Amino acid sequence: TVNGDRLWQSLMDLAEIGAYDDERTGLRGVDRLALTDADAVGRRQVIMWMEQAGLTVRIDRMGNIYGRREGTDPTAAPVLTGSHIDSVATAGAFDGCLGVLGGIEAVRTLDERGITTRRPIEVGVFTEEEGVRFGTDMLGSAVAAGRLTLEYAHALTDRDGLTLGGELTRTGFDGPTDVCLAPPHAYVECHIEQGPVLAENDVEIGVVTGVQGISWQEITIHGRAAHAGTTPTRLRADAGLAAAQIIVHLRALVDSGEYGDLRATVGHLVVHPDLTNIVPARAELTVDLRNPDDASMARAEEALAAFLRDLENSGPGLSLTTRRMARTAYVPFDEGVRKVIAQAADDHGLDHISLLSGAGHDAQEIAALCPTAMIFVRGEYDGISHNPREYSTPEACAHGVDVLATTLLRLAGQ
Amino acid sequence: TVNGDRLWQSLMDLAEIGAYDDERTGLRGVDRLALTDADAVGRRQVIMWMEQAGLTVRIDRMGNIYGRREGTDPTAAPVLTGSHIDSVATAGAFDGCLGVLGGIEAVRTLDERGITTRRPIEVGVFTEEEGVRFGTDMLGSAVAAGRLTLEYAHALTDRDGLTLGGELTRTGFDGPTDVCLAPPHAYVECHIEQGPVLAENDVEIGVVTGVQGISWQEITIHGRAAHAGTTPTRLRADAGLAAAQIIVHLRALVDSGEYGDLRATVGHLVVHPDLTNIVPARAELTVDLRNPDDASMARAEEALAAFLRDLENSGPGLSLTTRRMARTAYVPFDEGVRKVIAQAADDHGLDHISLLSGAGHDAQEIAALCPTAMIFVRGEYDGISHNPREYSTPEACAHGVDVLATTLLRLAGQ
Ligand SMILES: NC(=O)NCCC(=O)O
Ligand SMILES: NC(=O)NCCC(=O)O
Repeated sequence: TVNGDRLWQSLMDLAEIGAYDDERTGLRGVDRLALTDADAVGRRQVIMWMEQAGLTVRIDRMGNIYGRREGTDPTAAPVLTGSHIDSVATAGAFDGCLGVLGGIEAVRTLDERGITTRRPIEVGVFTEEEGVRFGTDMLGSAVAAGRLTLEYAHALTDRDGLTLGGELTRTGFDGPTDVCLAPPHAYVECHIEQGPVLAENDVEIGVVTGVQGISWQEITIHGRAAHAGTTPTRLRADAGLAAAQIIVHLRALVDSGEYGDLRATVGHLVVHPDLTNIVPARAELTVDLRNPDDASMARAEEALAAFLRDLENSGPGLSLTTRRMARTAYVPFDEGVRKVIAQAADDHGLDHISLLSGAGHDAQEIAALCPTAMIFVRGEYDGISHNPREYSTPEACAHGVDVLATTLLRLAGQ
Repeated sequence: TVNGDRLWQSLMDLAEIGAYDDERTGLRGVDRLALTDADAVGRRQVIMWMEQAGLTVRIDRMGNIYGRREGTDPTAAPVLTGSHIDSVATAGAFDGCLGVLGGIEAVRTLDERGITTRRPIEVGVFTEEEGVRFGTDMLGSAVAAGRLTLEYAHALTDRDGLTLGGELTRTGFDGPTDVCLAPPHAYVECHIEQGPVLAENDVEIGVVTGVQGISWQEITIHGRAAHAGTTPTRLRADAGLAAAQIIVHLRALVDSGEYGDLRATVGHLVVHPDLTNIVPARAELTVDLRNPDDASMARAEEALAAFLRDLENSGPGLSLTTRRMARTAYVPFDEGVRKVIAQAADDHGLDHISLLSGAGHDAQEIAALCPTAMIFVRGEYDGISHNPREYSTPEACAHGVDVLATTLLRLAGQ
């Protein structure tokens, strides 16, 4: 078993980087968007911990960081673990960080036991997993796995028009090594569940069977600015109303039950000129769809597209454009790795169930390169995440990393 | 008749102050929010024109500007005209400016004809008529008329937390004279219609019978930030969805026909944290209701309040607060002043009809002090306003100011 106190301390220390106090709730949250100053400080802290744990650190051209512990067989492909330390703007301490700090803690534990492995073990820290700054999630791992190109990623811009490539340079994380990852032997990632399933089933460990599909798009609506007092309703082309109709319709699609286990979220929404007595001339919103079933996802996307066409034709003056931000299909995880995880949980005397991931994870990208699976740790308060209330107990975190360490050891061999 | 070319030139000159180019439409608009640097430059330009026209300028503690032309009877109450030069962020050249520059042009014309009047004539420029920077419209005239206090107005803040009082000081428009206006003999304001009625009826001049009621409120919705991928729909408290439901419901209230000639607009809408994969924790929106019938307005407000209560009770985790921003009842204009206007239009051989104002105007505030009415000038393109396409022809503007000059002369007497 790993040192749960040391693991917890590192989680709490990292959470101070980019911390903020939420006035309304009195909670302390984390705001560490990818490649901001706070993220850069966090990265340097993690690199320091990696070096203290004896890992050899390399950084690739996407800013992905890898810490390597050598094995006894210099020709063997490494076993990779890891996750991300970038956060959303209203985050807790655990999302991503548990996988990175858990990987480092697993290595420390092997060192303390004097255990050598045949294969190298590497701990990865992937850039912009959240996708909220530059618009595409799992970005660093997607480029490492070859699904997206480095050029595409470097050219992405944030809301201030800053490019990811420029921000890599500015923060000093435009590393020298090739971003294309040589296929590891296997990949395993420990992460908080970010949902209610483990708690509802009262088990400690989730063996993740796969990740549901993710569809992100941005919709821009052009209407016509007009005076709120004088413009008859029939003469309006109200971009804000159209945005509201899309949001309400998305919930109706979910509630209809016709699209399987669809989830729909509009997290980003702005109107222009955004003034009390002006009918909005323009609105911009993002649509985040999730579905474990690819066919249902495609039908939901088509239903939304049809609604957008109807909206555009509903009156003169409205025009809509959409831009694809991110799209992933359902990704199943490897049965072999899942068995190793389940066995490790059994060895530690921990209850476990199999479950699907609601969130996207770097594991789903690395799964294109090698056998991959994930370990989920249960969360409190319905598993709330992307919220300062996100919380997993020190015991739950330690148990997850116990399973991770044992899994890594099995996969790396002795 | 006035000098239409000179009037037009001053409108175009003033429109260069705060001008911007709209990339999408290729149109040139005006962005001159109250007490910004652009507004201050515009004010100084107007004061210069007033002084060149021989007017004696005074500025009150609300930044309202009055230019006075003396009459032959030093004890007589003045006839007041005017409007505002602050604009919304996507404005044209005419809203407000026509009334101010038309007033100055009327005075120039009297001077050129060597006409003296018994009563003084004053041209007023009222502060923050639009209400989009500090949240309450017709603010300067409402304080001048005693409906709102100077303390209330000075304490209002913009989105950056700057107070109106502070911005008056910063721009140098915290004038020395008392804001309470001694009742004028009469008030008449020339303004663009900002709507389609005059064009649809193919007449030049509108004699305004009154201004419909205005109800502005801000609604803040608190929900719960949550992960878009992992949070089951049943566990969400989505502040953005609630905002969308309000917007869609408001349109349903309008379309129901049960609230008379109700208009409803949500012009301001923001969500927080405003990120793709986070269920909005908070949303803020403004509701702008207009109704010519006070009872129908009250019923519409009650229907909205009931909907907000239902929304709050619809699921756990949602809470709503409302803040009143502005509220005016229907204001009827004086029949005597309306008759003088109609007679002046007849004298100039201009067709006219009576109509209600859809927009709020300083006239509705000054109406509490003295007999008041307004002259409307027709607009092109369905009378679109609060939009760079806002346009009235040089002829239409000159005709409106012809009627204004003649009306002022009649009211001021010789
Ligand atoms: N784990 C996690 O929060 N990933 C962010 C990508 C997503 O929105 O699912
Ligand atoms: N005339 C005008 O645009 N006034 C602004 C106040 C309103 O919203 O009606």
